[in-house]
Amino acid sequence: MAQGPRPALVPGCREVFLETETSGVFLAPDDRRAGAPAFCMTATIDIPAAPATDALAETLSGIVGSAHVLTAAADMARYEAEWRRTYPGAARAVVRPASTGEVSRVVAACAAAGVPIVPQGGNTGLVGASTPDDSGTEIVLSLDRMRAVRRADPLDNTLTLEAGCTVREAQAAAEAAGRLFPLSLASEGSATVGGVVSTNAGGEQVLRYGNTRELVLGLEVVLADGRVLDLLGALRKDNTGYDLKQLFIGGEGTLGIVTAATFKLFSRPRQVVTTWAAVRDPQAAVALLSRLTDAVGERVTAFELIGEGPLGLVLRHGTPGMRAPLGSVAPWSVLLDVSEVSASLDLQPAVEEVLGAAMEDGLVLDAALAASDSQAHAFWALREHIPEAQRLEGPSIKHDIAVAISRIPDFIDQAGAALQQLMPGIRIVCFGHVGDGNLHYNQGKPAGMADADFRSHEGAVHGVVHATAARLGGSISAEHGIGRQKQAAFMHYKSPVALAAMAQIKRALDPANTFNPGRMLPRAFLDSLTSR
Amino acid sequence: MAQGPRPALVPGCREVFLETETSGVFLAPDDRRAGAPAFCMTATIDIPAAPATDALAETLSGIVGSAHVLTAAADMARYEAEWRRTYPGAARAVVRPASTGEVSRVVAACAAAGVPIVPQGGNTGLVGASTPDDSGTEIVLSLDRMRAVRRADPLDNTLTLEAGCTVREAQAAAEAAGRLFPLSLASEGSATVGGVVSTNAGGEQVLRYGNTRELVLGLEVVLADGRVLDLLGALRKDNTGYDLKQLFIGGEGTLGIVTAATFKLFSRPRQVVTTWAAVRDPQAAVALLSRLTDAVGERVTAFELIGEGPLGLVLRHGTPGMRAPLGSVAPWSVLLDVSEVSASLDLQPAVEEVLGAAMEDGLVLDAALAASDSQAHAFWALREHIPEAQRLEGPSIKHDIAVAISRIPDFIDQAGAALQQLMPGIRIVCFGHVGDGNLHYNQGKPAGMADADFRSHEGAVHGVVHATAARLGGSISAEHGIGRQKQAAFMHYKSPVALAAMAQIKRALDPANTFNPGRMLPRAFLDSLTSR
Repeated sequence: MAQGPRPALVPGCREVFLETETSGVFLAPDDRRAGAPAFCMTATIDIPAAPATDALAETLSGIVGSAHVLTAAADMARYEAEWRRTYPGAARAVVRPASTGEVSRVVAACAAAGVPIVPQGGNTGLVGASTPDDSGTEIVLSLDRMRAVRRADPLDNTLTLEAGCTVREAQAAAEAAGRLFPLSLASEGSATVGGVVSTNAGGEQVLRYGNTRELVLGLEVVLADGRVLDLLGALRKDNTGYDLKQLFIGGEGTLGIVTAATFKLFSRPRQVVTTWAAVRDPQAAVALLSRLTDAVGERVTAFELIGEGPLGLVLRHGTPGMRAPLGSVAPWSVLLDVSEVSASLDLQPAVEEVLGAAMEDGLVLDAALAASDSQAHAFWALREHIPEAQRLEGPSIKHDIAVAISRIPDFIDQAGAALQQLMPGIRIVCFGHVGDGNLHYNQGKPAGMADADFRSHEGAVHGVVHATAARLGGSISAEHGIGRQKQAAFMHYKSPVALAAMAQIKRALDPANTFNPGRMLPRAFLDSLTSR
Repeated sequence: MAQGPRPALVPGCREVFLETETSGVFLAPDDRRAGAPAFCMTATIDIPAAPATDALAETLSGIVGSAHVLTAAADMARYEAEWRRTYPGAARAVVRPASTGEVSRVVAACAAAGVPIVPQGGNTGLVGASTPDDSGTEIVLSLDRMRAVRRADPLDNTLTLEAGCTVREAQAAAEAAGRLFPLSLASEGSATVGGVVSTNAGGEQVLRYGNTRELVLGLEVVLADGRVLDLLGALRKDNTGYDLKQLFIGGEGTLGIVTAATFKLFSRPRQVVTTWAAVRDPQAAVALLSRLTDAVGERVTAFELIGEGPLGLVLRHGTPGMRAPLGSVAPWSVLLDVSEVSASLDLQPAVEEVLGAAMEDGLVLDAALAASDSQAHAFWALREHIPEAQRLEGPSIKHDIAVAISRIPDFIDQAGAALQQLMPGIRIVCFGHVGDGNLHYNQGKPAGMADADFRSHEGAVHGVVHATAARLGGSISAEHGIGRQKQAAFMHYKSPVALAAMAQIKRALDPANTFNPGRMLPRAFLDSLTSR
């Protein structure tokens, strides 16, 4: 079929729509999905060997049923790129086991064949850890058929779910048991149990309930040789050896495949006091959080800082009816929730007392307590609309940093000054979870700058922001993880001693680098350690 | 010096008080310490090679100063046995570094010389993980000179301390910053930061604040080759690679030496409602906990179940004035604390409402709310006096098991029935942290049985209790760890997959088995893995 020199394939292009002896029309999955073939190319290609001759595919079909081993491009497409489509790839096959036993046998078969595995949940990750690379050699192991709610126990306050359940399904199962599953994310309709465990997802209520790590009591994991590590169970205390589950929480699928998890549940709040406050500056926000926590303790459930940058964008690009809660856009605002389980203890006066004192002391300039659920939702809609408003405004350079809470004002000052020096007029879109020391610290281009020009500075902007966070003892990735996106910064800022220890653990548990190779720890780094 | 056949040394006896050509008087460290030489023996011995010729001791002296390398038996004695003196041993030397840099160099020197290290904190552990074996070859590395409070930050709500600080010192440092360090243990005056981290200590307020693991934000650890792994920092979110610190928390000193830790702090409660309640049975206790948590949330700070066995012992052996809070000894009692940060919210009515409804429903038979701090202390004194009362009563066989909270009644029923079958008349001393599913489930001998006869059944009693916990999905060691004491049960009940993964991690991070060899994972098990 192939004649003459073959042009390189455009990354992401695999499907043949129309083909003659010497040419074919390809559509990138991106364009095909949108239904508008905006990009086409003509090229000669080799079609890979037919799956019928693939012994591994036959073995896998024997395990999960041939209907659940996908090899046709159209079937695989939705597994080959994550929702943002930043990391499209090409899988050798997509395998969809229905049970832990099947996952175990699939892993054993792939390990025996030396074929790498990319575990996949809801494919909502942001750093390229859930999609195959473009080699066409990796198997995507999707957990999307493992959706059982194994057990909800209101006495134990626990919920055990299979990895393919979505966060929203977990919330519903908890609610049905009269309890709260406190993890809450923008992507909760798609993000899965296995995914939030493997990324140690955060979200909007970490301040009160903790990251996913703090919510997990037990895990079931398939190891790199196919053995099942059963660490499930609803124990609140268990000091029998190393706490192995911690390695797989936030392990980005590089050490094992999470097939089920047991989570802590909580009592459902019966009151929430939602407040929008204009604060003097970030330092005042930190001080207000401290005063509030001192006064009402762990009831402070969310405490978001919102700069004038993101609030302005939301008001410009938001839905009709969106308005600034205090009439005008203050340089710095705080959106906070204080929640209370008891219906009989009146929470609002305690919150008002703290706000009143903070106004007298000049920390808070103005504040509005939501008078109804719908007003509270309107406040929160402003916060939740920020990512979409950024998208509508134009290109963004994004960061997900964390520092100690007390260093947030320093970070904002220092990173802002350094960025203005690097690129005068750069627009700062700063918002995030002050209570967790976690800022989504993003940048838009200066007025008049071309998009391409702005994008060409992306590396330099990352450098300034990450270096500032690191200098203040912070993290270059608070919530999103490393994957492929943040690998270079990870290798640069993480201490060599920590990196070496991680590599030793990866080699101990997955010596053949079967799981998610090249994500988080680079292959070359692992290889360099092996050859020592 | 030695003539004729040498008698074996009594374990724990190493110090020569008086020596002639052919005889010496020895005192066991136990007796020597009490100042009354109750046990002596006469024997001929070899005195080990003088420390002057010990190249390692010289190297260590060069690092920490000769005053801090102890080799004289009198100096080493208090490091060679833990406070209960169940695991006395004989060290080659005790080394007391004053800084992380010194720990690093000491470890590197010992690793180079192939000499094993036993890290030691306050020596209050219960399972034999902090004292040397009797070989005289192990170095005890004591952290007792590393006592700096590095930083307390009320804005970050964090406290960073060196490993040798006691828990009480940590509590005081937090109080000085206007915050709460919530870990609270019977041994808090001696137990150290490094020790509670390495054992993932629990205590009486786990229900509200979590185990040590949940309180640790950062660690500084010296690895087996002497490198320093700096994981300190006050970040609430950090998803940059595997969460390495989790391996050292509860690692029993087998993977690294914890030299400093950063802990979360909390707001100090301004109200505590302490209640003593007689409950219908353990099932009623579990139901009461569930109702209370549903009504007032995480404010439930402690929830202790106390059987008639331990309460009877306390009233028999307690201090003058101790009395049953409700007049008589109910088969099952609950002691609970509900605490509240806010001074302005009146907590007591909310607690009374739950208790009232539980009485109407027959779960609670009678209840008394402490009317004053002194009455609350009197209630708690009953709980805290249980271990001493057991000791005064005679020999005990003790357990520290955990099951899911909802399985507590099953555990009590099934273990009790099996024990009565094994040993009719055996007396059950059952108490513990119901909110954590953790029971200290102990046994006293039947009336009239000889102590030695009772002790000879210890293994069989352990077998019944551990098997019952395991059958219910529970843990054989909820708080105390494995060390040497629970190694056999650990190897028996832990899954082979989990044990193998632990061994792989141990080998990856400490390939020469330098740290605490033979504790937690047996040498033979590690060796069998190595030879595969």
